[in-house]
Amino acid sequence: MSGETNRLIALAKEVQSAPDPRELDVMVSTGEQVTIALLSMALKELGLRARSYTGAQVRILTDSAHTRARIVSIDEARIRADLDAGQVVVVAGFQGVDEGGNITTLGRGGSDTTGVALAAALQADECQIYTDVDGVYTTDPRIVPEARRLATITFEEMLEMASLGSRVLQIRSVEFAGKYKVRLRVLSSFEDGGEGTLITFEDDGDMEQAIISGIAFNRDEAKITVLGVPDRPGIAYQILGPIGDAGVDVDMIVQNVGHDGLTDFSFTVHRNDYRKTLALLEPVVKHIQARGVVSGDRIAKVSVVGVGMRSHAGIASTMFRTLAEEGINIEMISTSEIKISVVIDEKYMELAVRVLHKAFNLESA
Amino acid sequence: MSGETNRLIALAKEVQSAPDPRELDVMVSTGEQVTIALLSMALKELGLRARSYTGAQVRILTDSAHTRARIVSIDEARIRADLDAGQVVVVAGFQGVDEGGNITTLGRGGSDTTGVALAAALQADECQIYTDVDGVYTTDPRIVPEARRLATITFEEMLEMASLGSRVLQIRSVEFAGKYKVRLRVLSSFEDGGEGTLITFEDDGDMEQAIISGIAFNRDEAKITVLGVPDRPGIAYQILGPIGDAGVDVDMIVQNVGHDGLTDFSFTVHRNDYRKTLALLEPVVKHIQARGVVSGDRIAKVSVVGVGMRSHAGIASTMFRTLAEEGINIEMISTSEIKISVVIDEKYMELAVRVLHKAFNLESA
Repeated sequence: MSGETNRLIALAKEVQSAPDPRELDVMVSTGEQVTIALLSMALKELGLRARSYTGAQVRILTDSAHTRARIVSIDEARIRADLDAGQVVVVAGFQGVDEGGNITTLGRGGSDTTGVALAAALQADECQIYTDVDGVYTTDPRIVPEARRLATITFEEMLEMASLGSRVLQIRSVEFAGKYKVRLRVLSSFEDGGEGTLITFEDDGDMEQAIISGIAFNRDEAKITVLGVPDRPGIAYQILGPIGDAGVDVDMIVQNVGHDGLTDFSFTVHRNDYRKTLALLEPVVKHIQARGVVSGDRIAKVSVVGVGMRSHAGIASTMFRTLAEEGINIEMISTSEIKISVVIDEKYMELAVRVLHKAFNLESA
Repeated sequence: MSGETNRLIALAKEVQSAPDPRELDVMVSTGEQVTIALLSMALKELGLRARSYTGAQVRILTDSAHTRARIVSIDEARIRADLDAGQVVVVAGFQGVDEGGNITTLGRGGSDTTGVALAAALQADECQIYTDVDGVYTTDPRIVPEARRLATITFEEMLEMASLGSRVLQIRSVEFAGKYKVRLRVLSSFEDGGEGTLITFEDDGDMEQAIISGIAFNRDEAKITVLGVPDRPGIAYQILGPIGDAGVDVDMIVQNVGHDGLTDFSFTVHRNDYRKTLALLEPVVKHIQARGVVSGDRIAKVSVVGVGMRSHAGIASTMFRTLAEEGINIEMISTSEIKISVVIDEKYMELAVRVLHKAFNLESA
């Protein structure tokens, strides 16, 4: 049923240029409603007992933020009764009802999130999410053939990997699972018998945890540097405020210590927002009397992720040395507790991923 | 959204050859769900306040007969509150929920029936159904250009007209309106300002009621006569039993008094069922030792409908004389309280409708 949501949204826009959110949810929720019925039929055709439920029917209670609602609670009694009676229960993802009984949808990432929320409500042993890959890899096997499936990965690492472009699970469902301590497992829809990747909690106590879990990368971004910015309080907001107001998400932000009262301010945005962002910056640059703007959209972001780096020194220097040995110039650096990201010329991306994968010994378990 | 239900049913059949009725209802109900959202958006785009509701949301309670459920009750409180607040309320037709909260659909004729049921629950002054014609006519204007829109027609007449092929309203909604005394009006979706046709109750007391309201016709049928049938009890059941068991609907049935212990037994079926019915009859004819079968599918049924005929003699003779004057042979006759139907050669159908329309003065109000 892929593409159904987009088809429905297009239909709505033919009628109302900015579709009413409540009515849009009434429409868009039908996509999964059709899917649950089809899945239940398929299960019955296989000789199993199955029943489908919409979000309203099992009362997946959400707030009233149409098109991006958040789950408040799930009444699991009906599901449990069916499970106890030997039924396979098929629940529509991505949807719920608010206190007033209005149909809501959860927005991006809502389908996986529903699964995790159900697992939490039912206190399930594990929530298994079947996807088009058989687990989380140390990096993309299309770039590094030696990439290895991880048997386990921590939630924190998964969050960094997912947001960096290893699109295995919807990030929101991972956050939800972390919050409610649901054990999540990613498995392949297309292969039988695999163990996939279990997303664990750090306190699950795997003492032999690897230092680095994987190399993530992303070439969807563009970088923008505002040069010669007056180094005074409030300047970051003056630059990024109008961009955020225009609905553009900013990813990396880098500002180094200034000198002579001036500094350079760099950030990355999605490539689709590149031209728009440059246009938004024009009046700002004039207003704050910056020296100018340099920018480029032929960049890639490459990140090394691992909870182990918190307790191991030298990860950053290994990363930088490895890239230097290949003559790859680093244009921006940003770090978090468990990740180091660099921005480099796009043309070196695959090379960087390969050499880093090797440098951190990721091909061997 | 026309065709959506058929698309969904086809999709279900790809998954399960005989789709589970409960799950089919979950799927098929989404068609109207999309429609109510689109209609509400369109109303909002026009500057009106509007809200859509599914059958579950306003609790259109039905029995549990999936795919052909019947409405039991409607909780009108929510709708009334919205109406009092100045909202246009858009309710999904064709669907409801049973006591267990399972989604049901009403089957054929269910959309109009929902409208009538809502009008009954809300004790509305009138239920207006917008369709592709601007009312009920004395006959089809494509055949008789002088055909006249009826300002009123009684429920009984409407039922006879509808089942005879004047497809203006879904017959089931007319029955429902009759049962709950809902005043129904048929209006055109494509023309403004028309008064359409009001479907009235006889006791509304229109003393000047016309004797004949209209001429209905139908060329979808085929006739079959079993010749030389032993004239004994149970013979009608022996002939029609296997046909009914095979799911073939029989329309007219005519049997005249027999002589010499034998009679002829005639009936009509839909043309699509003609060959199948003949095949079903073969063993029956042998078994009951009938003399044989004559049949034909080049026939038409023409009917004169009017509550006035109950109190006026001579309608039948006017009808038969009019056809005789044109040399049109009558092959079968059947009558009810308010209708006389004849089966004639298909090629005379339009002629018969025109001369009868004129004979009963239907072109003048």
